[in-house]
Amino acid sequence: MWLPLGFSSRVWEATLRCPAADVPTWLHHRNGRTPLKRKQTGKENPMATPQELYAELIAHLTETALLGSCASVLGWDEQTYLPPGGVEHRANQLSLLAGMVHERTTSPRVGELLGELEIMGDSAEDWPQAVNLRETRHEYNRATKLPRRLVEEMSRVTSLAQQQWVAARKKGDAAEFIPWLEQVVALKREEAEAIGYGDGVPYDALLDHYEPGASTADVEAVFTPLREELVKLVAAIKESGVRADSTIITRRYPTDAQRDFGINAATQIGFDFEQGRLDEAAHPFCSGFGPGDCRLTTRYDERHFPGAFFGTLHEAGHGMYEQGLDKSAYGTPMGESTSLGIHESQSRMWENFVGRSRAFWMHFYPPAQQAFAEALGDVAVEDFYHAVNDVQPSFIRVEADEVTYNLHIMLRFELEQKLVSGDLKPADVPGVWNETFARYFGLTPPNDALGCLQDIHWSGGGIGYFPTYALGNMYAAQFFEQARKDLGDLDEQFARGDFTPLREWLNEHIHHRGKTYRANRLVEVVTGEQLSHEPLVRHLHAKFDELYNL
Amino acid sequence: MWLPLGFSSRVWEATLRCPAADVPTWLHHRNGRTPLKRKQTGKENPMATPQELYAELIAHLTETALLGSCASVLGWDEQTYLPPGGVEHRANQLSLLAGMVHERTTSPRVGELLGELEIMGDSAEDWPQAVNLRETRHEYNRATKLPRRLVEEMSRVTSLAQQQWVAARKKGDAAEFIPWLEQVVALKREEAEAIGYGDGVPYDALLDHYEPGASTADVEAVFTPLREELVKLVAAIKESGVRADSTIITRRYPTDAQRDFGINAATQIGFDFEQGRLDEAAHPFCSGFGPGDCRLTTRYDERHFPGAFFGTLHEAGHGMYEQGLDKSAYGTPMGESTSLGIHESQSRMWENFVGRSRAFWMHFYPPAQQAFAEALGDVAVEDFYHAVNDVQPSFIRVEADEVTYNLHIMLRFELEQKLVSGDLKPADVPGVWNETFARYFGLTPPNDALGCLQDIHWSGGGIGYFPTYALGNMYAAQFFEQARKDLGDLDEQFARGDFTPLREWLNEHIHHRGKTYRANRLVEVVTGEQLSHEPLVRHLHAKFDELYNL
Repeated sequence: MWLPLGFSSRVWEATLRCPAADVPTWLHHRNGRTPLKRKQTGKENPMATPQELYAELIAHLTETALLGSCASVLGWDEQTYLPPGGVEHRANQLSLLAGMVHERTTSPRVGELLGELEIMGDSAEDWPQAVNLRETRHEYNRATKLPRRLVEEMSRVTSLAQQQWVAARKKGDAAEFIPWLEQVVALKREEAEAIGYGDGVPYDALLDHYEPGASTADVEAVFTPLREELVKLVAAIKESGVRADSTIITRRYPTDAQRDFGINAATQIGFDFEQGRLDEAAHPFCSGFGPGDCRLTTRYDERHFPGAFFGTLHEAGHGMYEQGLDKSAYGTPMGESTSLGIHESQSRMWENFVGRSRAFWMHFYPPAQQAFAEALGDVAVEDFYHAVNDVQPSFIRVEADEVTYNLHIMLRFELEQKLVSGDLKPADVPGVWNETFARYFGLTPPNDALGCLQDIHWSGGGIGYFPTYALGNMYAAQFFEQARKDLGDLDEQFARGDFTPLREWLNEHIHHRGKTYRANRLVEVVTGEQLSHEPLVRHLHAKFDELYNL
Repeated sequence: MWLPLGFSSRVWEATLRCPAADVPTWLHHRNGRTPLKRKQTGKENPMATPQELYAELIAHLTETALLGSCASVLGWDEQTYLPPGGVEHRANQLSLLAGMVHERTTSPRVGELLGELEIMGDSAEDWPQAVNLRETRHEYNRATKLPRRLVEEMSRVTSLAQQQWVAARKKGDAAEFIPWLEQVVALKREEAEAIGYGDGVPYDALLDHYEPGASTADVEAVFTPLREELVKLVAAIKESGVRADSTIITRRYPTDAQRDFGINAATQIGFDFEQGRLDEAAHPFCSGFGPGDCRLTTRYDERHFPGAFFGTLHEAGHGMYEQGLDKSAYGTPMGESTSLGIHESQSRMWENFVGRSRAFWMHFYPPAQQAFAEALGDVAVEDFYHAVNDVQPSFIRVEADEVTYNLHIMLRFELEQKLVSGDLKPADVPGVWNETFARYFGLTPPNDALGCLQDIHWSGGGIGYFPTYALGNMYAAQFFEQARKDLGDLDEQFARGDFTPLREWLNEHIHHRGKTYRANRLVEVVTGEQLSHEPLVRHLHAKFDELYNL
């Protein structure tokens, strides 16, 4: 077994989790094959046992994760506290770490270990060792196709591009960001070619990074029927003539009170602030650094209550997934989240299925009225409930209502595919964004900050990421239906401030499973059904038919 | 020349700083010796030129510095924002990075490169290349004596020990911290043995890490006469019967106003907030992450103005040194500070020689009265000036006046030597601290938070560090006398808020020189005299004889 001497306890634990007794019976040397040598061959017999090889693999993965988590800290600081003058140095730091992580991930020794361990036998899909080998193989194959030069260049360019994006967004004009988008898109196209793809769809290669196993066609198969239903629902709501009093949510909500109220709510639904923080950033995100440390960010607007509040619930949903992972499996696939889509199912569930429910506000409205007496003192809970569920076309994805939200995603999905295929030039993005937006929403963004510059993703290289948001909504709806079946009257629980049963259910069925199953299998295992757009459509009708008298 | 392909621009620049034309003539192959091969021998002629070897060394040093600077970010976050649950994971991260940096620092290739480059000739002491080789050799020799196990264990133990120190300090009781101090001291003793030392003084080996070239005897040589003078001065002040109205500084100073006032003052003396930040931490520090990013911390007490304010000036003094380093030499000795003592000379100069001068408050007192109207509205500037220069024995080093401060250091110097020699057991530290404190100051600390737990240093492994503070005071006094000679009436400049001449003088004579000279040589080069306690004694008499009618 190879381990750097005196290495930190976490790695020792990770290794010790795999004593000989835990190694399944299939993990034995195949007859007739020369076994692999130990990495360090000081011992008399240089041939390693399967247990030693597996332990070496796990130790390698864990140390790589630990190194990657250092980059996460630097990435968080870059978005929260970095002074302007430190941008270039930070890009250099992140580039170095990205290169080192990539080198470890693609180490030929990993290939050797996988090759040796894989031929030792088949096993049940959900055995931890089998899961770790399966997903490490997937990651290894993907990573070894990317040259280190490309990985480092991507890290360097995106670090600078994100700063340019911040500046351009401030001005509301994409012009100065376009050269950076061009660089990012060129690198992503290069990445797709390096990874490879079937069916002539390079976008598949990028999508697979965020939602392993999902193809563009898979996404289209659920997006298409969902789009039809959403368009009908949006039209029906518009024609209903019913309108919420949306001025309620743009009254004055002092920032300090928003912060306190948000932290209190996140605490009550179950985010553990002993093991995490909430800070401010231009673009809200959640970053799990590792066991015991998960950082959330949000942004406050004194004149817009939902932005920070539902943003905080959203990121807390992500955070509870991170906090719910199996700490003893840190650094291995068994201790990692399933996919971005499943991650998003957790954030969207807490943000919308819980946080925007009437039952939630039965519990939280009285303290909200106290905290925001000036804004809400004279507002009935029903009016507030409708105001935070007001459906109308708007420019900003992260502030969109539950119905139109998915159309924002479909717009980005459409543009991303064309950027990657080469059918859309980065320079044309601002114009095409606005045209497409007008087609979907009947509105034209007045500037690029409300248009193509609103999201950080592309500047960070996150092309192929957006579809996971809408997938997340569908996963969330399907999980939530199942949770209702298993846990009884969730509304009654929420109304008295009890969010523990749902959180524990999610922890057991989703968080703690790590990467045991791919996303589509996880949905089947948890709900007994394949992924479908129907639970989400049912959820939307149940909520909005009543609000809009449909 | 070896460089990872596509590496970040900073490293390229560092390399490009050394084109062939810049390489001094002595850097040629010595006749009769087989030259070293290139690291990558793809070329037809595998023999490297001196220029290539030097460039390889510089690239290696720069990348190592970059990796180390990642650890600095994590260390800063640990002290400012880390949630309690993340302590163990952070220790693991820092342990990993420390091990990797140590491995790079002690790489046999560095030894090969140094060996080859060193034999190529002698040169002037201040040639950049000669400086880089000399100091890299010093660091390499020191580092190669430390086994990786010890380095990683030190990182792990001190990361946890610091958290224990925070908890024990909160309680004011050292008992639970003692086992951690024992571990730290044992590791430091091990370190001293590994490094080696002459004259039977293991403490020398630790001191050399912070103040290269200085020995315990050197320190005693200036501490002894200084101690005599200080004891006389403290007694004279006590006997003078003159007292400042020290209640002035413990009135109510709202935290937000303190923060704004401190940031404003730091900005005016020249700390660049575009390239740095000020945050809060239990124990104030300054951490230079690299070009363009330097972090200061302080702590606020609404009932004690000097703590945060002079602390901020102090850390800003450190910060301006970091910001004044030659950015193009980042990662090499030419781009690093001379020593901790010289670093401290900068912080103490801005804190005391400038910040506690009457001239400084001629400029800053009117805005201070505005910012703290409740506390200072009825206070004359002379009374305030005396209050912030009140000399009296007190428990906390960082809040001590200029006269007694050095006695705090001498106490620690005394205890540290005994801890390292084995004459003092960690378990006896609280008692011996209090006895020694009573001997020096005639007071007994009421609890360990005001006694042996007040400083973070020992928990972080910083044994041998304290003497540099008093050395810093002496360097500061000697530099400041020279600056007065060179720049004319500094008081007149300060009184009208002009701190630029002094800052630029420090930048030219000290900051920008990096490690060109060792500390004792730098003092000679800048002032024409060897280090002496006399300038500090002259400064203290000039100031306090007047205040106390001596």
